[in-house]
Amino acid sequence: MQPDESRTVYRGTLFDVTLERWGDREREIVEHPGAVAVVAVDREGRVTFVRQLREAARGHLIELPAGACEAGEEPLATAKRELREECGFTGGDWTLLASFWTTPGFCRERMHVYLAEAVEEGDAEPDEGEDLELVRWRVDELESKLSELEDAKTIAGVLLYLRHRRSR
Amino acid sequence: MQPDESRTVYRGTLFDVTLERWGDREREIVEHPGAVAVVAVDREGRVTFVRQLREAARGHLIELPAGACEAGEEPLATAKRELREECGFTGGDWTLLASFWTTPGFCRERMHVYLAEAVEEGDAEPDEGEDLELVRWRVDELESKLSELEDAKTIAGVLLYLRHRRSR
Repeated sequence: MQPDESRTVYRGTLFDVTLERWGDREREIVEHPGAVAVVAVDREGRVTFVRQLREAARGHLIELPAGACEAGEEPLATAKRELREECGFTGGDWTLLASFWTTPGFCRERMHVYLAEAVEEGDAEPDEGEDLELVRWRVDELESKLSELEDAKTIAGVLLYLRHRRSR
Repeated sequence: MQPDESRTVYRGTLFDVTLERWGDREREIVEHPGAVAVVAVDREGRVTFVRQLREAARGHLIELPAGACEAGEEPLATAKRELREECGFTGGDWTLLASFWTTPGFCRERMHVYLAEAVEEGDAEPDEGEDLELVRWRVDELESKLSELEDAKTIAGVLLYLRHRRSR
């Protein structure tokens, strides 16, 4: 399923915008390489989040460790790289919890949410300009912490993880 | 919390793109007026979804009824308008399930997810160019249908609703 015509109408640093013609409809689409988020559980039964300034939201948000896929990078490789860079975690037992479109009305971002269990601690290597604070919550605290979350992938990821736990 | 400088670098039909300077950092942001999604439960205990072509996703997706806020429109008013237009539902008992940012790394879309219970059936009035098919699932089917969902707000909304039901 492909458009009849497609042209780039904005070239940005983080994303481009494409104008597509589908029959008599035009669609304006934010291009995106896809992204990942990780529910990382350590051997002490804690989940690690990152707290950072999100300029678009005009404040700090608590989110799952996450990031965009680099060119040609498989989502699982992105997930392991981001978890190491942002939180310093390596190893772990990995499961794909879900894949979804974040905002399919206007953006081509497909998000893959992974569970990484029994991850091992190491040193984080945040990107220059990333100012991340790590926040750790015990698994049995997650239900009560949900109201502090204001990020879609994080709310979906935590709820998918709690459902996954109940189903085992 | 506001940027030091801000300028529009792309003016589109559906959205603009702003380049903001925050100290020595630049942020490229998709502007968005905010949006709503509705978990609508009828008196027969069924939840109604809309199935539509999402060009950005190159296929059809099953989603909660949803839409963007118009200028000056309160989110609850948007939710009631969209539910009437897309599904024909009126009335109902309304609860805010959650508000969150859909993609806070690059977009200013804040999403409000409502629960509307005991809605009343009427005639839908879809916007011109909207080709919506209504899909109805019983509440007790939702858990098993989750794997058919590939839209972030819909996955989050369904899981928040199931959690809300369990807590009553």
